[in-house]
Amino acid sequence: MSVAILLTGSELLDGRIQDTNTQFLTGELDRHGLKVNRIMICGDEIDEIVGSLKALAQQARFIIVSGGIGPTSDDLTREALAKFSNDELQLSEKELQELEELYKRRKRAFHPSNKRQAFFPSRAEVIKNSVGIAGGCIVKINQGKSEQIIFSLPGVPLELQAMFRESVLPFIKRHTSQRDEDSHHSFRIFGVAEALVGSKLEECNLSGNVKVSYRATFPEVQVTLKGRELEPVVKAVRRAIGEEYIFSEDLDIGLERVVGDLLKERGLKLSVAESCSGGMLGQYLTKVSGSSKYFLGGVISYSNQIKAEVLNVSTTTLQEKGAVSAEVALAMAKGARKTCRSDIALSITGIAGPEGGSEQKPVGTFFIGLADKKNSLAYKGFFSSNRKYVRIYSCFAAMECLRRHILDLPPLFSTELVDEGSC
Amino acid sequence: MSVAILLTGSELLDGRIQDTNTQFLTGELDRHGLKVNRIMICGDEIDEIVGSLKALAQQARFIIVSGGIGPTSDDLTREALAKFSNDELQLSEKELQELEELYKRRKRAFHPSNKRQAFFPSRAEVIKNSVGIAGGCIVKINQGKSEQIIFSLPGVPLELQAMFRESVLPFIKRHTSQRDEDSHHSFRIFGVAEALVGSKLEECNLSGNVKVSYRATFPEVQVTLKGRELEPVVKAVRRAIGEEYIFSEDLDIGLERVVGDLLKERGLKLSVAESCSGGMLGQYLTKVSGSSKYFLGGVISYSNQIKAEVLNVSTTTLQEKGAVSAEVALAMAKGARKTCRSDIALSITGIAGPEGGSEQKPVGTFFIGLADKKNSLAYKGFFSSNRKYVRIYSCFAAMECLRRHILDLPPLFSTELVDEGSC
Repeated sequence: MSVAILLTGSELLDGRIQDTNTQFLTGELDRHGLKVNRIMICGDEIDEIVGSLKALAQQARFIIVSGGIGPTSDDLTREALAKFSNDELQLSEKELQELEELYKRRKRAFHPSNKRQAFFPSRAEVIKNSVGIAGGCIVKINQGKSEQIIFSLPGVPLELQAMFRESVLPFIKRHTSQRDEDSHHSFRIFGVAEALVGSKLEECNLSGNVKVSYRATFPEVQVTLKGRELEPVVKAVRRAIGEEYIFSEDLDIGLERVVGDLLKERGLKLSVAESCSGGMLGQYLTKVSGSSKYFLGGVISYSNQIKAEVLNVSTTTLQEKGAVSAEVALAMAKGARKTCRSDIALSITGIAGPEGGSEQKPVGTFFIGLADKKNSLAYKGFFSSNRKYVRIYSCFAAMECLRRHILDLPPLFSTELVDEGSC
Repeated sequence: MSVAILLTGSELLDGRIQDTNTQFLTGELDRHGLKVNRIMICGDEIDEIVGSLKALAQQARFIIVSGGIGPTSDDLTREALAKFSNDELQLSEKELQELEELYKRRKRAFHPSNKRQAFFPSRAEVIKNSVGIAGGCIVKINQGKSEQIIFSLPGVPLELQAMFRESVLPFIKRHTSQRDEDSHHSFRIFGVAEALVGSKLEECNLSGNVKVSYRATFPEVQVTLKGRELEPVVKAVRRAIGEEYIFSEDLDIGLERVVGDLLKERGLKLSVAESCSGGMLGQYLTKVSGSSKYFLGGVISYSNQIKAEVLNVSTTTLQEKGAVSAEVALAMAKGARKTCRSDIALSITGIAGPEGGSEQKPVGTFFIGLADKKNSLAYKGFFSSNRKYVRIYSCFAAMECLRRHILDLPPLFSTELVDEGSC
């Protein structure tokens, strides 16, 4: 009962546009238990389209074609469908009349080329376009004992989405008896390399009925299990990975949401002090709509001047220990907590590179400060990569330090300094 | 001399991720005069990959494969390449040694599963991964009189991009006799919709010898002209678009670099005050290595408390005008300039949504404040979209306000308030 997708259009082959229809279609189909097993993209030529349809018909029962049904001369999906199904194009008087009325209502001139959009293979069933103009169609192909069904949709995302939801998905559901009884379970992990997650799962000796897929979405690793009766497997995998490394078991809930929810539940207000991350930590935390309930703001202390003057970091400490040090991270967090009058403060100072590294503190070295009403801590982390990745990693590290601190889990990074005094 | 692309990975077939490698590869190949005629996406199974390679080998001389070369059990491109080329996987002692050294340098543990990444088809040539870990490879296939060349690259965009530019493109260029004598010229535009840029270029009546390609990389539009003797065409296009809308004519130089260079040239130090953007503006500005020469830092004044207490915005103004107002934007910029002792300050306050909109100030409304030693200004902008895009747009808007201010160009957004007094 698998589905294949064909995107047509030379603009997809020369970098002019970013396709988004694939992600929409695959996501929707997956959500309804339908498996996509092949996707192709080809140019605006009849033979290209026919050749691609031939290849895909061997892979899947349903083929969704996107694009090539507009009014211009390079819109050739109609012709290709007729050729592939040994049919002929025929003018649909009914569709023509509706097209003309639609243009009249929208006060646009009806050009002769628009008439092309009322032609369909003679045996096709027309799909209404509730958003735009060009109608799509459904073509059935009988090859020996099997039947393939092709859906032709526009390439315009909003139109394709509406027609998929209104016509294509209901059609497929009516024509598939088999239901997908597999369930899914995902883990989102920070602090364990993808390779190590892989080794740990291999040690679980999962049965062949459980499909495991990995995704490294920097800097986290996502693991999805798929199969029936997953419950015992989920437990075993959770144990194998190590519970404290799993910050979420929901693909829609990222680390910034997890941390935000913990703060909200406990009625805590957070502030930040950022050096090398330059505002990125605040940007992550405020991705969540409603984050103002627990996030007050903070200070981007990129320069030492701001560290000293706004966060009250001592200039002696800055000089003696350096801006990238446990002492400064701790003082930044304490300063942010005081300046912003928050319950908790998080700070980041590090060497994002490419310049500024030394033998003792190479590029990728960072310190996280955490201050709350009880005490202040500084953690040391290291991630060897380029500027962009070091910055992203340090922000995740800061959020993860906070998550583990709130949940009283063992810290992920080495604790360098603890200041028990009130601040 | 055509090229085909194969993306592997079940995460591309179930909607989990948005592929961006296709647009990168097709755009780069097109820029170098190489035509892509077919793209396929298939799952993480050896037979799927082999079947796809077979189909693509009939279409193109060069095949670029992305994905499936990591260390986990669903990384099967290596196995598929060996099978397709009737070869066997062989451990490369040299690659293994380099991998182990790389892990040592990065202070990461080398797990047994990482060893997988040192296996390649015995006749393959290894491609270095200058950014990440897993090396790619080049496999040559002889089918009768024709020869196909397959490049295996990682799916991680940054790694794929580097390896494509450093190894794949030079290889293809060496193996194709046809030379590309066309030159290129690009424009990076902010503040004009893609469709309008298109209409403006159509009015230029460019000759058929000039190829125009568009790329909408939110929130900017990039236009690339390709052809011979482009100089007069470049001038005409620049005029048609409007010079003030073009912030860069170099694809490698983004708006944050342009603004940074202007500040550096003039010896000016910048600070920021961010509300709805939550740190994103600072994050953009500090993407540039060396930005500490002109960027001091700033205040993330997400809550009104921080606007009042750290930036000294009057609580009366906050109450009477609302946090999203020209008055508050202006006061935030003045406050940031004073708190951070900078020459210039930029501020953003807006309604990113999905909540918080009203009839008078719908979601997407934002104000930019700009304060320097002469005066302070507030601009009003609007961009109807979702939270993510409103935030990105407002950051670009702020940087563009500053660029136009420094260059004395007409402002892109309406000026709502001007405060001539010193601050």
